[in-house]
Amino acid sequence: MNEVIKTLTNHRSIRSYTNEPVTDEQLDAIIQAVQAAPSSINGQQVTVICVKDPAKKKKIAELVGNQLWVDQAPVFLLFCADFYRAKIAAELNGEELVITDSIESVIVGASDVGIAMGNAIAAAESMGLGIVPIGGARRNPQELIELLDIPEYVFPVAGLVVGHPADPSALKPRLPREAVYHQEKYNRDLRGLIEQYDEQMSKYMSERTGGQETRNWSQTVSAFYKQIYYPKVRPMLDRQGFKYE
Amino acid sequence: MNEVIKTLTNHRSIRSYTNEPVTDEQLDAIIQAVQAAPSSINGQQVTVICVKDPAKKKKIAELVGNQLWVDQAPVFLLFCADFYRAKIAAELNGEELVITDSIESVIVGASDVGIAMGNAIAAAESMGLGIVPIGGARRNPQELIELLDIPEYVFPVAGLVVGHPADPSALKPRLPREAVYHQEKYNRDLRGLIEQYDEQMSKYMSERTGGQETRNWSQTVSAFYKQIYYPKVRPMLDRQGFKYE
Repeated sequence: MNEVIKTLTNHRSIRSYTNEPVTDEQLDAIIQAVQAAPSSINGQQVTVICVKDPAKKKKIAELVGNQLWVDQAPVFLLFCADFYRAKIAAELNGEELVITDSIESVIVGASDVGIAMGNAIAAAESMGLGIVPIGGARRNPQELIELLDIPEYVFPVAGLVVGHPADPSALKPRLPREAVYHQEKYNRDLRGLIEQYDEQMSKYMSERTGGQETRNWSQTVSAFYKQIYYPKVRPMLDRQGFKYE
Repeated sequence: MNEVIKTLTNHRSIRSYTNEPVTDEQLDAIIQAVQAAPSSINGQQVTVICVKDPAKKKKIAELVGNQLWVDQAPVFLLFCADFYRAKIAAELNGEELVITDSIESVIVGASDVGIAMGNAIAAAESMGLGIVPIGGARRNPQELIELLDIPEYVFPVAGLVVGHPADPSALKPRLPREAVYHQEKYNRDLRGLIEQYDEQMSKYMSERTGGQETRNWSQTVSAFYKQIYYPKVRPMLDRQGFKYE
């Protein structure tokens, strides 16, 4: 196993940080990795906003759902899907920007952000830094947009906390490979594999919490997904100029 | 610069492959990296379908817009956003699956796929393999769904061609860092940076094509984005059970 695959497969999310700063050189390397990622039509529809200001970071920690580690770690990177530059490109060429009328742009933006974020995570972890992605950037997205002066045709996808781990974190088990990796066609026979993983996750949670918490995977997922847990996303997208043709 | 950052920043898309196969060990390492990626609420909403069958691969090459390299390379990995397992999780717990009523699920699915695909690309390239992402998976998505028997609550985000590069490819210049990386707040003053990049890209294209092609970045992007170039995405999402609240 080479160093790259070792780093990728050793990922764990960190929710406790020391106050050691992240250096400019480290941030540079992370952003180099972000920019090197491929993007749809080379549109480069990813923007990263770096927040280090303690007051701003404290505010963001609240907005994303009182996630203390956002406040605690030295750096918060907000990853946005960005068609504002495409809008400028259209203006420079006397064209209209039409792609944002379609849900296609939401998929392109979010998946490009994902690829870039995957690179950022690998780069950070390769330097011994810890990270945790913050989906809570979609909890109060309009407030985040105002706080960071984000223009139309741009929307926050997720944040990334970056810092030095205070505690190592355990490697979380994943679904059995056969549940997510299919040969030649989709295999719908998944219930048994999910039940098998449920048992494993229940044991893992119990061990980590001294028996306090024994919820398995399907319980956790179904509890989250029986509702729209970030209902402000759609109104925010509307305001940012996106449509859903 | 460590090995990981070296691999990430050395990415280039490959559109010409030898017929040397990708080994099971290499695919294993790629899927390990995919599964190790973090995901929203640990929902693991990513599915990869591996296609090696030549006839199927030939068909896919057509469906994605006659991209010959899909046919030529030994492996095509289709990356899907997957809430079918969440649907099973809901059934196992007597809950309803509601998240797919919201555009939130499209963002979560697409960005999780992106993170996983970023890992797959880094893993493949670290082993000397070449890749090219195939956004054309959204050109005729319904046909792809039927060909690979993809169930409801799952949608194709992008493909990934994997193989051995026949030709090295050039490193494509990126937008100036200040155009995509902002400090403390979004900087809307981007026009000059885009014009600067336009000049650089025009020169790069001209050099690569012996003067045949001189289109700059904003010309290319505005030509793509003056239309909805994959208009079948929305009807496909409707059929797969997604809504946009």
